[in-house]
Order: sequence, then C-alpha cells, then structure tokens
Amino acid sequence: MNRIVIIGAGNIATHLAMNLKIAGFEIAQIIARTEASAKPLAEAVSAKYTCDLKNLDTTATYFMIAVSDDEIANVAKQIRVGEKLVIHTSGSTPMDVLKDCSTNYGVLYPFQTFSKKKVLNMRKVPICVEGSSLEAQKNIVFLSRQLSDSVQVMNFEQRAVLHLAGVFACNFTNYMYAIANDILAENNLSFDLLKPLITETVDKVQSLSPREVQTGPAIRKDMKTIERQEKMLEKQPDLLEIYKLLTKNIM
Amino acid sequence: MNRIVIIGAGNIATHLAMNLKIAGFEIAQIIARTEASAKPLAEAVSAKYTCDLKNLDTTATYFMIAVSDDEIANVAKQIRVGEKLVIHTSGSTPMDVLKDCSTNYGVLYPFQTFSKKKVLNMRKVPICVEGSSLEAQKNIVFLSRQLSDSVQVMNFEQRAVLHLAGVFACNFTNYMYAIANDILAENNLSFDLLKPLITETVDKVQSLSPREVQTGPAIRKDMKTIERQEKMLEKQPDLLEIYKLLTKNIM
Repeated sequence: MNRIVIIGAGNIATHLAMNLKIAGFEIAQIIARTEASAKPLAEAVSAKYTCDLKNLDTTATYFMIAVSDDEIANVAKQIRVGEKLVIHTSGSTPMDVLKDCSTNYGVLYPFQTFSKKKVLNMRKVPICVEGSSLEAQKNIVFLSRQLSDSVQVMNFEQRAVLHLAGVFACNFTNYMYAIANDILAENNLSFDLLKPLITETVDKVQSLSPREVQTGPAIRKDMKTIERQEKMLEKQPDLLEIYKLLTKNIM
Repeated sequence: MNRIVIIGAGNIATHLAMNLKIAGFEIAQIIARTEASAKPLAEAVSAKYTCDLKNLDTTATYFMIAVSDDEIANVAKQIRVGEKLVIHTSGSTPMDVLKDCSTNYGVLYPFQTFSKKKVLNMRKVPICVEGSSLEAQKNIVFLSRQLSDSVQVMNFEQRAVLHLAGVFACNFTNYMYAIANDILAENNLSFDLLKPLITETVDKVQSLSPREVQTGPAIRKDMKTIERQEKMLEKQPDLLEIYKLLTKNIM
C-alpha cells in the first residue's frame, strides 16, 4: 500500500492529507513544527506525528512537503530518501529545490485558495504537475488523479503565469469585496445586499468572456456617474486612487 | 387589474417586463425608440408597442421608465399622467426628475447586473424603493414584492453608496477577471483553470468577511513573490501599475 508522509499542517497540508486519506492512501506521518498543529491533523487522518524531521519515517512511499514557500528549501535540506518520490506543493517554487532529497522529485500544485475552516470539492481543483523525470511525472499524475478530475502537466514558467493570474482573479477581487464591504458598513448598509450581484458577476464568466460582460460607468464612459462617485471617495484618497486607475484602464 | 406601461427595452426593461408578466401583471405597452427593440419584447410579454411617447397609453395604472440614466429626464418631460404612479429604475438618478410627471412617483431600483441573454432569479435581487409620498412608497413596495423577496426602502444617498460599492464588487472584479484572462491567453493557458478558484473566492465571502479571508502574496508580505510577479508584468506598464497599487493597499 502507498504510504505518504506529509510535512506541514497548514491549509494546503490539511486539505491534501484529508483528501488523500479519503482516496484510500495511508498517511504514514504528519510532521509539523508544533504539536498543536501536527496532532489534530494526525488524529483526523489516523497518522502518527512528530515535530522533528530527524524522526522522518523513511519507510514511506511518498514524501509531500506542504509548507510555506519560504520554508521549502529549509525542509528539503533535511530530507534524504534515495529514490523515493519527494513532492512540494508550491506554485511559485522551482522543482529543483528538491534535487538533493531524492533522484525522483517534482511538484503537485493544487490551484485553489484553501482555508482549514472551509470544506471544498477537491475533485474540481486543477492540479498542476511537474516531475524530474517521466517516471516521477507519471507517479505524481497518478497521485493527483486520485484527488482531482483536472490534472495538467505544467512547467515552472506556466505555474508562475497561473499564479499571477490567480492574484488578479482571487486576491485582488477579494480585496474589491473588502472595499465594497467597508463602503457599505460606513453607511450602515449590509454586505448581504451585494451578494446576489457578486454571485451573478461570477456566474457570467463561467460561460462568457469577462471582456464581453463588462458593465458599469467606466465601460459606458458615463462621466456624470464617474465624477459623482469620485466625489464620494474624496475623503478616502487610497480608494479614490484605485477607483481612478481601474476606471481609466477599463475605459 | 393593474396594467403597466414600460418605457425602454434594454436589459433592465426586459427583465422587469418578463418578471412582472410572470407575476401576473398585464403589460399594457412597451415604448422604445426603435421597432427593432420594442417589438420583440412586446411580443414576449403579449403587449402592444409604440416608438412614440405621444402614443402613451395613459389608461394604464403604473408607468415604469427603464431607460439609460441620461435619457430619464428627457422621457420624463413627455409624460403627464395626473396622479398615477410613475417610477424610474435607476440607482444613480434622484427621484425628483419625475416630479412633473405625476403627483405620485418614485424609484424601483433592482440592484443587479442584467444581460438580455442571461436568465436570473429575480426573487433574490435586492430591490431598493423610494416614494414621493408614503402612498407612492407603499405602492412601489407592493410592486417590488411581486418580483423579489428582498425589498428595501432606500433614499438617494443610500442608493448612491450601494451603486458605488457595486462598482468595486462587480465592475472592478470583472475587470480583474479580464486581466487574468489576458495573462493566461498570452501564455496559451485556459481561463477554465481559474474558474474553481473564482468560485471558491466568492463562496468564501458568502459566509465570512472579505478581510478575514484575504490571501495571496500581498497580505503575507511575501516580497520575493511580489518582486517576481512585478518583473513578469514589466512589459505591461498598465497592469504593473494596477498590481503595485492594489498590492500596496492590501499590505
């Protein structure tokens, strides 16, 4: 049976461990810096745990490094497992950071925003795969297909492009929601009023291209509304600057 | 029976006419500038149509002006219906533009992004109501409740705030999708890869506050990733400017 060690106990590590367990893999070991983070995840997936990489269970089949980008190189330095498959899960880290860990290594990058608190359907999450050899790639694709229906082989440059697109489509849109929320809250209006609009905006781009469905004062070049809205933002120079720049670019 | 005249045949007019018809109202007349736009909508809701406001059917009960913001005043000038209820559907136009049309007037503003091509569930669309008198307000609330489960009385200032929040939450986020789409297309990657991420981002803000769920390099102050992504945008100064401004504000 394929036994997997997971290093990390954060958002991605948690979702991967849970879903690998559901897919029928044995989670051999969870390794995290603190017992407080390692233990609950280990218990959830019936695994052992340790806070010291020296106790790494080298009898496992796969080793998955799901820690923050800054920590990957540091973890990799402490792993030596011969020919066994070592994988990291980062979109923005080259594969070669793992080259001393094993002769077989690669990347399994699930392209999604994960929170421990929020369950999601992993089968719909695109997983981007890169392997140090065809054999490594084949094995990571196999592993990924147990988790998701959307598996793509992708090199570092492509992952970087995807990550950048994700910053615009996820991080920056969420920030737009935060601004909208603030504007409403200052005026004692509920964010709930916006939810149908937000949902519909996203519904549209499921089937139509975003450029095609762009609406609003900027695309209509409705200067009267734009000027009035700029005036409303007069006392919030940061928001006004964002409003002006995005409006200019849409026009 | 309540008979309604609808002036306009664009996105909002179309959705309102269809949904009022479904709710059991008789659409007495559709008035639009061209036969090409008036006729199909009139046929869809079994109404008569005209392209000349002089032919307005003044025997109707309600008169709904659902034309573009710039046209409302011009249309209002040509309507004189005594005490009958005249309504416009604009978020960003004061109610008083209708004050010479009738002694009873007001606003029915459905807060949503409408496209003729796309069916949506009107019952979930927040409708913001303002009336020139309590009687007018009561009548517009009655009309709105036939269409939606979410009806709020809201004055001009509140509508303007809501509209501004909508620009950030809908128009600007859609523009972020357009940028993401361009970045992927230039690199022969499909926008489909982003859809699960976009859906999840929106799912999160249905139950959690946007500030709480902000992710990405900016909120993590991950300068290595930010610098690399800025470098990727070097040849697109417009996008780089947007990236830098939003990143700075999130940090």
